[in-house]
Amino acid sequence: MPEKIAILGSTGSIGTSTLDVVAQHPDEYQVVALAAGSNVDKMIEQVKQFRPQLVAMKTKDAAECVVREVPSGVTVVWGDEGLLEVAAHPEATYVVSSLVGSAGLRPTLAAIQAGKKVGLANKETLVTAGHIVTAEAKRAGVPLLPIDSEHSAIFQCLNGEHPEDVVRLMVTASGGSFRDWTREELKEATVEKALRHPNWAMGAKVTIDSATMMNKGLEVIEAHWLFDLPYEKIDVILHPQSIIHSMVEFRDGAVMAQLGTPDMKVPIQYALSYPRRLPLATERLDLLKLARLDFRPADFDRYPCLRMAYEAGKAGGTMTTVLNAANEVAVAAFLKGNCSFLMIEEVVERALNAHIPVTNPSLEEIDAADSWARQFASDCMLHSV
Amino acid sequence: MPEKIAILGSTGSIGTSTLDVVAQHPDEYQVVALAAGSNVDKMIEQVKQFRPQLVAMKTKDAAECVVREVPSGVTVVWGDEGLLEVAAHPEATYVVSSLVGSAGLRPTLAAIQAGKKVGLANKETLVTAGHIVTAEAKRAGVPLLPIDSEHSAIFQCLNGEHPEDVVRLMVTASGGSFRDWTREELKEATVEKALRHPNWAMGAKVTIDSATMMNKGLEVIEAHWLFDLPYEKIDVILHPQSIIHSMVEFRDGAVMAQLGTPDMKVPIQYALSYPRRLPLATERLDLLKLARLDFRPADFDRYPCLRMAYEAGKAGGTMTTVLNAANEVAVAAFLKGNCSFLMIEEVVERALNAHIPVTNPSLEEIDAADSWARQFASDCMLHSV
Repeated sequence: MPEKIAILGSTGSIGTSTLDVVAQHPDEYQVVALAAGSNVDKMIEQVKQFRPQLVAMKTKDAAECVVREVPSGVTVVWGDEGLLEVAAHPEATYVVSSLVGSAGLRPTLAAIQAGKKVGLANKETLVTAGHIVTAEAKRAGVPLLPIDSEHSAIFQCLNGEHPEDVVRLMVTASGGSFRDWTREELKEATVEKALRHPNWAMGAKVTIDSATMMNKGLEVIEAHWLFDLPYEKIDVILHPQSIIHSMVEFRDGAVMAQLGTPDMKVPIQYALSYPRRLPLATERLDLLKLARLDFRPADFDRYPCLRMAYEAGKAGGTMTTVLNAANEVAVAAFLKGNCSFLMIEEVVERALNAHIPVTNPSLEEIDAADSWARQFASDCMLHSV
Repeated sequence: MPEKIAILGSTGSIGTSTLDVVAQHPDEYQVVALAAGSNVDKMIEQVKQFRPQLVAMKTKDAAECVVREVPSGVTVVWGDEGLLEVAAHPEATYVVSSLVGSAGLRPTLAAIQAGKKVGLANKETLVTAGHIVTAEAKRAGVPLLPIDSEHSAIFQCLNGEHPEDVVRLMVTASGGSFRDWTREELKEATVEKALRHPNWAMGAKVTIDSATMMNKGLEVIEAHWLFDLPYEKIDVILHPQSIIHSMVEFRDGAVMAQLGTPDMKVPIQYALSYPRRLPLATERLDLLKLARLDFRPADFDRYPCLRMAYEAGKAGGTMTTVLNAANEVAVAAFLKGNCSFLMIEEVVERALNAHIPVTNPSLEEIDAADSWARQFASDCMLHSV
């Protein structure tokens, strides 16, 4: 029986790579539902190739455009409700959660509550509501399988190991597009240059987050929840080649690492095929061609977003929601040319300083903190211009 | 209940490190029997500290020296028979096989046949009789747990994985004491310089084998038997820092690696504690201090012993026995100053060329090939002097 898959965010970077993996294994995986935002053309193409039963688009307009071009048996829905329908599609056994931003939280929770296995690429689900999501997954008895390359690497390193034997996670970071720039040079950082990631082809938001190192900060918070470890046991190490995707140190001094070429299809497929591995058409790692791997400290002074992520994570409660929401607003503004690169970290820092955190927040309190932070960040940038 | 341990070769490098590990975990491990060659003082010291029930020495003289100095409850035996008694000690549940050379074969087989778990540091057991030893272990239902750092690394990388998913093993090699020397410069290689291994503190035989790369060749043959993989799926890669102890590539393109500082206590303890890990007082890996890891090809022209090991392995039968025995004789002669460094590989090559291999050999046929190769190698050096 093939795994029946629903994808939240099918037209994005992770979504299309997931479909590439599915296409390589038609006997193993079958697509039953797809959800996307407003990329009508890509969705029509995906529907024609993968024949899902259900499709959700963000708006009614987009849904109407899709419905005109796809076979009549395909149900097309829209809006938040449509997204939740895809997440809880009765035939789906596996949901890939790859929406960008905090929009991913509610549908991911819906998938968990409907008893689906969840492949998690949406960082914000754990960053903003890690305590709720992990508790719900435990209650529903469903696995949260990491899709981020770093968390997948850690997950692979932990395979067959005992949690009590773990001493430390070492999350590797490429350093992003500006890793060789000084703080002074960052004043001149442009959107165009920020989007040139040295190793990975990813969406715009995560590419900017790589340049600020906020991406790594969010990953540290995500790792905290996924692997149930305190922040003191999670280190970040700069590794420019992005070949070692992350490492785990055990109490006997042994360190396990997962390596590979930078191809998101590898962690995506692992999340789908775990605990087995399937063949995959991907470029093989050639260490002789690389000849060397380098390591440098991930400096909190050089990367204040990384420091703030640790601080917010350790403070807990709604602080990580605010970290994430303020960052989302600032990055969106930067991408539109409405905010400088260095302003991103400043907006986030101000939001964290101004926020009065709520401990162990409910989903409503998380939403309130999220809205507050977005408003605060927008105001903040308005006043700075 | 503590694991009850017998050590074959307790006064050697692996033996003493094993006892270091045991001393760190008195509740987990208890020594019941020790066997050594002629190092009487060290054995007396070990007996006083670890209180085994049975001790074996190589000669009657050595045994008599030991018996005078240890408590009367300790039985002291000697010779090949004594070694077999230690290997099959009725109270032992675990035998560490760390004799050097083909002398390790019979007692290791005795331990397997007596149903003991076996921690295998003696390469020659698998190099000379891999088909017999692995078949016996299967029949007795006992695990062969690798102690070599490379095989331990591979074993750790395979933890939780499925054998069918493995595409390739990458055995790392430091390159030994002469890794930056040209073939021309090797003509001037002295024993003193050959014994200066850049990373590992090991016994003399294995240090010379590292310099010729025969050690890596023997490890490739060992890996072939331990992990049941054809030689085409086992690669050697030069990695001067000896930090990545070896790697496994899977069919999804993922590569798992085990890293650590060069400390044999780590693989020794893993072989004892598997599948768990225990705390261990050892230097922690600091990748920031190292800053980089390098990789180079392990060139067959530069390292003919590596080429010969692959050729002997692929030819099979008694060819690996001859490879090993000729090498043992030549290395012993080199260490005594009776043969040049480059003569080692020449002696081995001549022995392999002269040998008519026996397919699927019995232990007797292995012994015969071993004796023939030793005689041939001795004669060969005699005629060359």
